[in-house]
Amino acid sequence: MSDVLERLAEVLEARKQAEPESSYVAKLYAKGLDAILKKIGEEATETVMAAKDGDREHLVKEVADLWFHSLVLLADQGLHPNAVLDELDRRFGLSGLAEKAARKPPA
Amino acid sequence: MSDVLERLAEVLEARKQAEPESSYVAKLYAKGLDAILKKIGEEATETVMAAKDGDREHLVKEVADLWFHSLVLLADQGLHPNAVLDELDRRFGLSGLAEKAARKPPA
Amino acid sequence: MSDVLERLAEVLEARKQAEPESSYVAKLYAKGLDAILKKIGEEATETVMAAKDGDREHLVKEVADLWFHSLVLLADQGLHPNAVLDELDRRFGLSGLAEKAARKPPA
Amino acid sequence: MSDVLERLAEVLEARKQAEPESSYVAKLYAKGLDAILKKIGEEATETVMAAKDGDREHLVKEVADLWFHSLVLLADQGLHPNAVLDELDRRFGLSGLAEKAARKPPA
Repeated sequence: MSDVLERLAEVLEARKQAEPESSYVAKLYAKGLDAILKKIGEEATETVMAAKDGDREHLVKEVADLWFHSLVLLADQGLHPNAVLDELDRRFGLSGLAEKAARKPPA
Repeated sequence: MSDVLERLAEVLEARKQAEPESSYVAKLYAKGLDAILKKIGEEATETVMAAKDGDREHLVKEVADLWFHSLVLLADQGLHPNAVLDELDRRFGLSGLAEKAARKPPA
Repeated sequence: MSDVLERLAEVLEARKQAEPESSYVAKLYAKGLDAILKKIGEEATETVMAAKDGDREHLVKEVADLWFHSLVLLADQGLHPNAVLDELDRRFGLSGLAEKAARKPPA
Repeated sequence: MSDVLERLAEVLEARKQAEPESSYVAKLYAKGLDAILKKIGEEATETVMAAKDGDREHLVKEVADLWFHSLVLLADQGLHPNAVLDELDRRFGLSGLAEKAARKPPA
């Protein structure tokens, strides 16, 4: 399961060569950055609403939508999800130093 | 790099037993769901602003903040990030069927 | 100009009796609270993006969209915009006591 | 009640000359546009949460916070709330032509 993000990043990279009509993601790239950012705002709002409803199954779907559109944003900006995972790793010292998490609040 | 989310989920699970004063995350759990959801809204807005600034380094940090607080939300609701990765896998057919992505737009 | 909100509130109230197909607002009421709240999230994100673009004309339109959907939300919840204006008045002591504003930060 | 926005705009304009330490708004201006936009995102999220809670009293306060920070944003960008009210008036034909509202959905 662990490399889903890796493989999804590959798919998103490949979609950059596709015709806008060929897929949802190719269409989103064609519309440009603002269209992608609107989706980030929308999916964050829908995540909040699903959590307020206490609907865990729906919450999983909305967080998936939020992460998915974050990945599209990263790809659009020429970034790989590993840059984000590296940042989390660095920040929380996950490479064997998990205890440090308590002392490292996110910025 | 691929199991950063897995290990971060473990850290977040362990923080549930910690005193609220002992860490940023323990404090967030103690404040409750609304405090976590406010962070989702905040970090989504900051992600949008970093992208509009065209500041890729800052964007990586904001997406890390957004994913981090999504993970706190999942943990708070008794969910594991694998549920989200499974949903992405299922939706995009990443287990060897990447071509299907074009036909499966997110909900 | 000052009673635009008042008259818009009347229009929104009247739309509650309309057929869903008859207007944008009637359709939004019919879709329910979550659809209205999604628009609040969307228009807030678009307001942020217009401001980041430094496009003042676009910003005015996006703030108009944000206020408009706030008014739809209030109407849907049986509230009049005067309740919000009263709250701002009370908070900032605008009825002749503007100087108090400095000492009354919003909650 | 109808000129609360007008008087609040005057207060917000006057605050531009104030020392950052002298008031919440003066501090926000000093922090700059991004700080104001973060508040727009936060208050929109809190509006959504209050509405999901079905807490009408809380909802009024959150919409007041959202409108208040929209007014700070307008002032910061050298805009008057009348520009937004004019846009709503123009869009919904409120100057005696309310019936047109059904045919003019917001952009």
